[in-house]
Amino acid sequence: MKTRAAVAFAAGKPLEIQDVELQGPQEGEVLVELKATGVCHTDAFTLSGDDPEGEFPVILGHEGAGIVVDVGKGVTSLRKGDHVIPLYTPECRQCDFCLNPKTNLCQSIRSTQGKGLMPDGTSRFSLDGKPLLHYMGCSTFSNYTVLPEIALAKINPEAPFDKVCYIGCGVTTGLGAVVFDAKVEPGSTVAVFGLGGIGLNVIQGAKMVGADKIIGIDLNPEKVAIAKQFGMTDFINPNEVDNTVDAIIDLTGGGVDYSFECIGNVHVMRQALECCHKGWGESYVIGVAGAGQEISTRPFQLVTGRSWKGSAFGGARGRTDVPKIVDWYMQGKIDIDSMITHTMPLDKINDALHLMHEGKSIRSVILY
Amino acid sequence: MKTRAAVAFAAGKPLEIQDVELQGPQEGEVLVELKATGVCHTDAFTLSGDDPEGEFPVILGHEGAGIVVDVGKGVTSLRKGDHVIPLYTPECRQCDFCLNPKTNLCQSIRSTQGKGLMPDGTSRFSLDGKPLLHYMGCSTFSNYTVLPEIALAKINPEAPFDKVCYIGCGVTTGLGAVVFDAKVEPGSTVAVFGLGGIGLNVIQGAKMVGADKIIGIDLNPEKVAIAKQFGMTDFINPNEVDNTVDAIIDLTGGGVDYSFECIGNVHVMRQALECCHKGWGESYVIGVAGAGQEISTRPFQLVTGRSWKGSAFGGARGRTDVPKIVDWYMQGKIDIDSMITHTMPLDKINDALHLMHEGKSIRSVILY
Repeated sequence: MKTRAAVAFAAGKPLEIQDVELQGPQEGEVLVELKATGVCHTDAFTLSGDDPEGEFPVILGHEGAGIVVDVGKGVTSLRKGDHVIPLYTPECRQCDFCLNPKTNLCQSIRSTQGKGLMPDGTSRFSLDGKPLLHYMGCSTFSNYTVLPEIALAKINPEAPFDKVCYIGCGVTTGLGAVVFDAKVEPGSTVAVFGLGGIGLNVIQGAKMVGADKIIGIDLNPEKVAIAKQFGMTDFINPNEVDNTVDAIIDLTGGGVDYSFECIGNVHVMRQALECCHKGWGESYVIGVAGAGQEISTRPFQLVTGRSWKGSAFGGARGRTDVPKIVDWYMQGKIDIDSMITHTMPLDKINDALHLMHEGKSIRSVILY
Repeated sequence: MKTRAAVAFAAGKPLEIQDVELQGPQEGEVLVELKATGVCHTDAFTLSGDDPEGEFPVILGHEGAGIVVDVGKGVTSLRKGDHVIPLYTPECRQCDFCLNPKTNLCQSIRSTQGKGLMPDGTSRFSLDGKPLLHYMGCSTFSNYTVLPEIALAKINPEAPFDKVCYIGCGVTTGLGAVVFDAKVEPGSTVAVFGLGGIGLNVIQGAKMVGADKIIGIDLNPEKVAIAKQFGMTDFINPNEVDNTVDAIIDLTGGGVDYSFECIGNVHVMRQALECCHKGWGESYVIGVAGAGQEISTRPFQLVTGRSWKGSAFGGARGRTDVPKIVDWYMQGKIDIDSMITHTMPLDKINDALHLMHEGKSIRSVILY
């Protein structure tokens, strides 16, 4: 079949809208009609050419929501008409990772997904007879796409696609880091470095689980209003204090119970660790640092009881946890609407990238 | 009263045996007759002058066992005749740290202990009318010493002083890191960097809790025999492999579940983290690095599910856990005897330091 898609032909070039060829679902695969997709920094990072694993031509996008149109042989958990969110971190429930309760990093299709291919080692997309690569196993910048069954979360059919698509990446990454990875307890103190989309979702996760003090840290004071709306109780602008770590330690009487780095800056990652409370503070790296960059600290920070950890896709097991987050949204426990600052049709997708680069959007969503 | 003690008058000088003056126990304090004390690397580190917090003159020693001789006003949990192990990490059971199940780092007397003083801000030791400092709140290189009640663990009176004194530091530091901090599960894979006294106790802790594969890493092949005796299943000499991390990953099919750095080398700390399994591996820093040295890694190591942590005094809450470890020794669950390679009277304490520096002892114990 044919489908409209935004194709990234080369690093640094604008996306081009094309009618591309999409092969139907093979065994264990599912054809999905996307109804909406967010445009995320990770898409822009790969498009920029800075992603060492990025390859072209490719159909980007990994934060979508849609409807099952057809299923391949052997697919048992999904049927035509199901509402779904694509998962760039799948959940096979059979690999060593899925069977270990300590991780969500299902590895069952890792090697082919990393190469932009379906698990059988081929692509379903092509243009003029030449294959186009899949992206993060999702390629949601196409109106129709094919995914493995294990990479789709079946969600509440009442949920609005144009909002819950954001659960496919940003919401889950921030909220999940609090809920599934750190398991923040009621009454905790929390520091959130970076008040972009991920940081806001960390904040609302901390609020949802009953944290007492939620400290936001950002260089941009324009972020304060929306961060407060999501639950931030205190704000620190590093430009307005002598030392950010000391300011957090003073504000909390010794440091925070949990901190989250939502920027990708290795110097901030160090601050996030060192503002944690002696004895029990835990710091989670969420942001993605540039290639080759390293984090450092004195080992004394660890020996005196701080832990340095990371979080990917919020520690969520996608098929199990993403539907829960959709329900939390439907129940009003979390807000997504306020973070969707822009919507547009696929034709305007390059505008979404511009808005992001200019810092004018929290999240732009493409409506198919 | 008078007591014989080994006094450290200045950095880098041999210890001198002196009859020093010891004031009796004040309120909340306990007078202990030491029967044995280990000589630990930490004592040697402070004596060397490299310890930035080391002050002189001081009575070193922190790994003892003895008998309560007298108690001060208000002491309720100990009485004359009780057998005890001094605790350089006390357990007051009332401070924010003791009341938080995530840490063992009781802070109730931290500031005075760090200055070499009793909680009231004075010293009990003096010589020729001039005060001598306490060390780590213990000063076990004195035949008699005074400690706060909260810094003494009451132990099984059948336990031999010349063996269980080692539980006052080395045994607990290694064994506890496995049992109390990491909570290693049966069937786990474990890497132990450095096969000195701490490393051997990590190994026997891992064996005690049922680890499957216990990999020792050391430059010195002479450590192999005793490490095997304590439970090491595999040995890697970094001089004999191209890459230590890769060798561990190959040996375990992806990395270890837990690793422990027992040396104090920041480069080895990095290896210990990076040999951990993606998704769930946890690395514990036990060794003490030189002043100002830093650990580094790529944050990707954390984002993909490895955790970097530390352990001090094995995560043990001294008054609660040290008596348990004494019982485990009495029940034959752990071996201490094989690690006590030398014993000597206090007069020969400088020989114990020499044996340590020459790598000829695992542990020397002074018998009073």
